[in-house]
Amino acid sequence: MSNAPEARARRPSGRRPVMLREIHEEPERVVTLIDRESAGLQKALQRFREIPPPLILVAGRGTSDNAATYGRYLFEHFAGIPVSGAALSLFTLYPAPMHLKDALAIGISQSGESPDVAAALQAARRAGAFTLAVTNSARSSLAKAADHTVLLHARKERAVAATKTYVAELAAMAMISRALDGEPRQSEIERLPGLIQAAIECETKIEEVAPYYRYAPRCLCLARGFNYATVREIALKLMETCYLGSAGMSAADFLHGPIAFVEEDTPVLSLAAMGPTYEFMLDLTKRLEGQGVDVLTFSNHKEVLKHSALGVHCPVRAREALTPIPFATLGQLFACHLALIRGLNPDAPRRLKKVTRTL
Amino acid sequence: MSNAPEARARRPSGRRPVMLREIHEEPERVVTLIDRESAGLQKALQRFREIPPPLILVAGRGTSDNAATYGRYLFEHFAGIPVSGAALSLFTLYPAPMHLKDALAIGISQSGESPDVAAALQAARRAGAFTLAVTNSARSSLAKAADHTVLLHARKERAVAATKTYVAELAAMAMISRALDGEPRQSEIERLPGLIQAAIECETKIEEVAPYYRYAPRCLCLARGFNYATVREIALKLMETCYLGSAGMSAADFLHGPIAFVEEDTPVLSLAAMGPTYEFMLDLTKRLEGQGVDVLTFSNHKEVLKHSALGVHCPVRAREALTPIPFATLGQLFACHLALIRGLNPDAPRRLKKVTRTL
Repeated sequence: MSNAPEARARRPSGRRPVMLREIHEEPERVVTLIDRESAGLQKALQRFREIPPPLILVAGRGTSDNAATYGRYLFEHFAGIPVSGAALSLFTLYPAPMHLKDALAIGISQSGESPDVAAALQAARRAGAFTLAVTNSARSSLAKAADHTVLLHARKERAVAATKTYVAELAAMAMISRALDGEPRQSEIERLPGLIQAAIECETKIEEVAPYYRYAPRCLCLARGFNYATVREIALKLMETCYLGSAGMSAADFLHGPIAFVEEDTPVLSLAAMGPTYEFMLDLTKRLEGQGVDVLTFSNHKEVLKHSALGVHCPVRAREALTPIPFATLGQLFACHLALIRGLNPDAPRRLKKVTRTL
Repeated sequence: MSNAPEARARRPSGRRPVMLREIHEEPERVVTLIDRESAGLQKALQRFREIPPPLILVAGRGTSDNAATYGRYLFEHFAGIPVSGAALSLFTLYPAPMHLKDALAIGISQSGESPDVAAALQAARRAGAFTLAVTNSARSSLAKAADHTVLLHARKERAVAATKTYVAELAAMAMISRALDGEPRQSEIERLPGLIQAAIECETKIEEVAPYYRYAPRCLCLARGFNYATVREIALKLMETCYLGSAGMSAADFLHGPIAFVEEDTPVLSLAAMGPTYEFMLDLTKRLEGQGVDVLTFSNHKEVLKHSALGVHCPVRAREALTPIPFATLGQLFACHLALIRGLNPDAPRRLKKVTRTL
């Protein structure tokens, strides 16, 4: 395939979208996050290395809920601590005391101004939990509600669609996991900016596949395990910026019903990272290939791409648990370029503001 | 509106679909479930009324995962016990020990033969949890892995799309909540079959609204709080039986992104039950009405229906926490009648078998 025309990366006005510029900032922002926050976080969570919390509560909305889901897989897998993803209405619309003594509660919000996330953290603190805010704003109500704040250092995010703050939230989850249990190792965390850079270097390949979905009527995004959060986030980005009806789901849940729904005009976007879920994703891809389904795969392994209608090979070398970070960047680039190709302005989705306040 | 023609409730072959017959059985099946299982369940969970579990783990796939989500709201709201919805791949693909001592683990599967749900229950038992199976098969591997089994008594479900077993799973969640904490009260549980019957009596109204969605290209299903599980399940039924691209989501998360995506040709199916979430759903309906979005609302309150393009008034009188049970029945009837109107056989969705085995 030839290089995509330069014009594709421009808005109708001819300007490069802010969303794209913010994606390109990600490696540098994550370097700053790791530099500035690692030591304080290690100290704040010291207590839990001696006596692990009986439970971790994670709370977020929209994009930050997907970061919470990634954290959940990390904390359960590495530290063996059960995680509850807060049902926020139980803290706001139906308030009732919850047993959270000695738990760790983590509230995640880019702006720190989603009142329901702050309410959950306040309630958890009253119930005896140690509270951690993950936010891009040190003066936010979320930061004020927390015992310790992990500041994202992503600088101001101007595009409505969260990109660099999402990737920073994911990196913060990996840092929290390390502070709890030593895994992933600090050397792996320090390699994250390089993994994100490798994803950004796949941009030309992404620009080449995006045009195929110019008129896609809908899309299903599939992965398993650690990348479940990533496909939820990619589906959200496709809805926000491309107005494409998308759902992100577990590839295992997909076999329990939604597989009935895919047909020739329903493309599937699939993530197949090397690691324990790879064989499952390879088998599923072959099955969908046999059914004539149009599968676009992002993978760091070439074999699965042979069974996909289209593929992007992203040569990140990392254990599967860390692939959601560069794979999120791939998905952001795809959503941004697809929006441009569909004649939309990815920086200003209709009906959305940067900060959404729900209670 | 006149009565819908009788032919609509027939398959192309002229036979009444099995799925519809099974929905009509629901009140009777739930009577049996309550009669046969209440006492044993009270006794099995006696220990937790003295010392509540620090955590409840719930595990299910597909439809049963939606039942697990409903259980989660009940247990957190009434008993204040944090709930973790098991990420099943963490028990199968990435097995690692989890801290679950003294916890209650609940595995939910109609067939009892989903190996990953059984694996999660076995792992929880090894980790020191008390294990409960909720299944329609007493001899299943899930029942064998559990300390106590709540048998659904739904009789054999022949349609591939789960209906009576889903409603029975929801009723079982309410019974478990009562056994843990006394709420909902036994008198409320005994009124459940009557609530389901009231939903079935709305069938004519549902047959009248279904034709409007004959050519709908996609659909978003919205609710908050207890009915979040219900809209996830309705979206799944619409995908399985109508091949309609649907996503069920929290109406609050919807405001954090997907609202950008709805437009004139994206109908929204909304559930607005009287109770703490009603005002939020009413405000959202008015906002969507102002944007010209085609909203179909199921509600037990007439006011919200005035702001909806189409509505089904279902006069169930129950607190909001119990409305997911009759509202699930409404959604099942809608999916079944819409499949018939779209010329599809709801009893045999393509590519699906009754029992899906994922590991």
